[in-house]
Amino acid sequence: MFALAESDPGLSKKDADPIEEQLRAALLKAQYSRLKQKQRALLIVIAGIDGAGKGASVALLNEWMDARHIRTLAFDKAAGCGKARPFLWRYWNHLPAKGKTGIVFGSWYAPLLKEAARKKPKQKKIQRLAKAISQFERTLAQNDVQIVKLWYHLSKQAQQKRTEALLSSPDTAWQVRPESLKVNKKFVRLRDAAALTLSQTHADHAPWVVVPAADTQVRDVSTGRAVLKALRKQRTKPSDHAASSPEPTVSRPAPSLDELDYHTKLADDDYDALLPHWQGRLARLARDKAFEKIPLLLVFEGQDAAGKGGTIRRITKALDPRQFRAIPVSAPTEIELAHPYLWRFWRDLPSPGQIAIFDRSWYGRVLVERVEGYASQTEWLRAYDEINQFESQLQNSGAVILKFWLAIDKDEQLQRFRERQVSPFKSFKITPDDWRNRKQWDAYLQAANDMFARTSTPGCPWHVLPANDKRHPRIAVLERIVTTLEAKLEHQKG
Amino acid sequence: MFALAESDPGLSKKDADPIEEQLRAALLKAQYSRLKQKQRALLIVIAGIDGAGKGASVALLNEWMDARHIRTLAFDKAAGCGKARPFLWRYWNHLPAKGKTGIVFGSWYAPLLKEAARKKPKQKKIQRLAKAISQFERTLAQNDVQIVKLWYHLSKQAQQKRTEALLSSPDTAWQVRPESLKVNKKFVRLRDAAALTLSQTHADHAPWVVVPAADTQVRDVSTGRAVLKALRKQRTKPSDHAASSPEPTVSRPAPSLDELDYHTKLADDDYDALLPHWQGRLARLARDKAFEKIPLLLVFEGQDAAGKGGTIRRITKALDPRQFRAIPVSAPTEIELAHPYLWRFWRDLPSPGQIAIFDRSWYGRVLVERVEGYASQTEWLRAYDEINQFESQLQNSGAVILKFWLAIDKDEQLQRFRERQVSPFKSFKITPDDWRNRKQWDAYLQAANDMFARTSTPGCPWHVLPANDKRHPRIAVLERIVTTLEAKLEHQKG
Repeated sequence: MFALAESDPGLSKKDADPIEEQLRAALLKAQYSRLKQKQRALLIVIAGIDGAGKGASVALLNEWMDARHIRTLAFDKAAGCGKARPFLWRYWNHLPAKGKTGIVFGSWYAPLLKEAARKKPKQKKIQRLAKAISQFERTLAQNDVQIVKLWYHLSKQAQQKRTEALLSSPDTAWQVRPESLKVNKKFVRLRDAAALTLSQTHADHAPWVVVPAADTQVRDVSTGRAVLKALRKQRTKPSDHAASSPEPTVSRPAPSLDELDYHTKLADDDYDALLPHWQGRLARLARDKAFEKIPLLLVFEGQDAAGKGGTIRRITKALDPRQFRAIPVSAPTEIELAHPYLWRFWRDLPSPGQIAIFDRSWYGRVLVERVEGYASQTEWLRAYDEINQFESQLQNSGAVILKFWLAIDKDEQLQRFRERQVSPFKSFKITPDDWRNRKQWDAYLQAANDMFARTSTPGCPWHVLPANDKRHPRIAVLERIVTTLEAKLEHQKG
Repeated sequence: MFALAESDPGLSKKDADPIEEQLRAALLKAQYSRLKQKQRALLIVIAGIDGAGKGASVALLNEWMDARHIRTLAFDKAAGCGKARPFLWRYWNHLPAKGKTGIVFGSWYAPLLKEAARKKPKQKKIQRLAKAISQFERTLAQNDVQIVKLWYHLSKQAQQKRTEALLSSPDTAWQVRPESLKVNKKFVRLRDAAALTLSQTHADHAPWVVVPAADTQVRDVSTGRAVLKALRKQRTKPSDHAASSPEPTVSRPAPSLDELDYHTKLADDDYDALLPHWQGRLARLARDKAFEKIPLLLVFEGQDAAGKGGTIRRITKALDPRQFRAIPVSAPTEIELAHPYLWRFWRDLPSPGQIAIFDRSWYGRVLVERVEGYASQTEWLRAYDEINQFESQLQNSGAVILKFWLAIDKDEQLQRFRERQVSPFKSFKITPDDWRNRKQWDAYLQAANDMFARTSTPGCPWHVLPANDKRHPRIAVLERIVTTLEAKLEHQKG
């Protein structure tokens, strides 16, 4: 339990000066050492009672450290486009790269603290918010984003005194935000809510540090020391066993590539009639007024040459080019490697009324990265949970996600590879990588089956479609998109 | 003059098939060759009469070429955040990298064509739009973004026939956009407006190609051929002599580093009184309701160690961390090098109510890139115009830009370098680069003076401030920001 005391320690300027000088030099040294190592990013969360000098502390860190490698993550309503996205999107989107530092001001704790400080807080909402935060911080900590959280605290008396002093001159009055004026009246409630929140969300991998904020020197020195300690801290990852989230409920029976009828076929005549039919229905749905509120994500995975590209083209043909974006996912770039693997997908989220079509996806973590050893076993085992959480956050914010696996068998792949090699406009599709992956056929099969078992949740199931016949999956995919969207729009209207 | 004929050429499917097969193979080969060379990006503009099959042609190119290296740039209202930005921002923001292809659908021609097709078009508006387009295309062509523009045309009769055929079945009726229905009534006016627009905006470096669109085979083959020709085309840059824009009017006399009193000083007492005064005024302005509509750009250039960082910190101290972003500009990354040099700055534009503070800027093109030879003489000479156009586009969209040069003399720099080397928290600021740049002192001086002479325009002048005394420029910068903003807000309210 965090105690937020009603006493305000002090430190004279004379005593503070030499300490601060040492601190500044040490902070710079530690910052440069991490910039050089490029192993972990650091997020410094600045939170606390209004009127405790949080803004001044952001400025302080920028002055004491090299501000060119620090990015302040501070968002207000003006940031605009963030509203329609999941709550944590903006933080994901602006994560600092490995080696760099981010200062989070106006953090992901704001909604939780606001709820906790109400006269009659809703426990269910508090638990939901706390759980989302804990998952988020866990995922970051697991993926080389270190977190330290500073809580700026001062006594009720000191808060009032500081506010009054600032208000006494027009040159400083602007530092008092309207919120600070209201704080004093409900001070005790705010303080107790904070103590509870801190206790609930303190973790070894994302610790809270209380900064006494009444005295400027104490505040500055405490801030500097907390950040220095974080910069110097050895990597501590949350233990995988103590995972806060229970095993995800997976739809039973989960799909499996072993029990698939690869020879499911669709006759030419049927295809010729069904294709325009489903394309027409999709086209009308995508132009429906109600669809303007829905971000749609379509995920395509499958063996090489399973027909993902052709299937995607049958979908996009029904769409206005203004409303979709096809996103081919290949090996991560240098800057993507300097961030958690989910980062690049957070940045590609569609806004409402828009469709993002992923040709391969975040599931690469548990497929190619697992099979080729780019991710360690701990990493890819952990990824199932992280991915389930990612998708459920998107769904909670109103997004619709459909995941398709196009499945061909080994003989069919060989035949397609050979066809591609001799075709003047398909040969570009076949590379040495494809032949190399083929040698790992069984390992990929195992990875896919494990993936279905762990990530085909009732809320976001995998659609595994036999694709030896090219026509069958094209129609099946269109049909599932249409029926899912129709149900969703119906539900919204009703 | 472009003639848009009232005849519709045809081609049978039997005749077209072998041509198309050859075309597809050739397109892929050409696409791959450019992907490998990574010398130029290609933008394909798809424009034309509504109902001529533009959407189908976007789909065609994605099918015939490798869609994974093509990005469709198509924006509608849902893109949202684009509204408050300059009109061309969205295109800049999504430019394909060198080697890659972008298909522009719903292009920068839309407003011009709309105006030209009105019953009484405003000639002034047409000229303004045409000039902005011509500058934009020139700048892209100069900076390794090739452009080809396809105009889809068919006769009035064919347009009506095609629309009716699509409407006859619910499976195809969705392909008819509401706009297409209205087109036929004002067909002649639209056609003539298009012919005029094409003639006015045709250029060797951004040519128009008319695609006959009534017959599907002719349309497909013509589209493929035009794109193939563009992919194979040798680099043709617009000649620098035929620059369409006249010499910019520069405020006379332009500032110069030769005529500066480097020893301008501000007494300690004055500084201590003036700093909170101006910070307070800036703080209040930045929190003014009227400021929420203004994107503010502050540009800082100057000799190494001139005090840019310290000056910037005196500004940010008065601001809410949520409303500004400090952007340190250093050497371009790999992905930035694969785009025109202005690209990264277009991506960092502030939205209204936000402040972007550039610690070094796009002026690097005519400073470090000129002096160190990273840009050729042709390139940096051209950049003055490009930069003036960039800034005037921002200003036309409502942005306020303030450009500051902090000037120290050679002795002062030496002293500061030496101080930095022995200071425990300043030594990080001094690198071998700084000593190397110092050897080029006179070349940088010349580059700065040339820059002032060419880019200190009446609408966007340079503020050159003596900075041997650190206090003087801090106050001067704050004062100029405040007075400029006050005048702007006054003007808006009045």
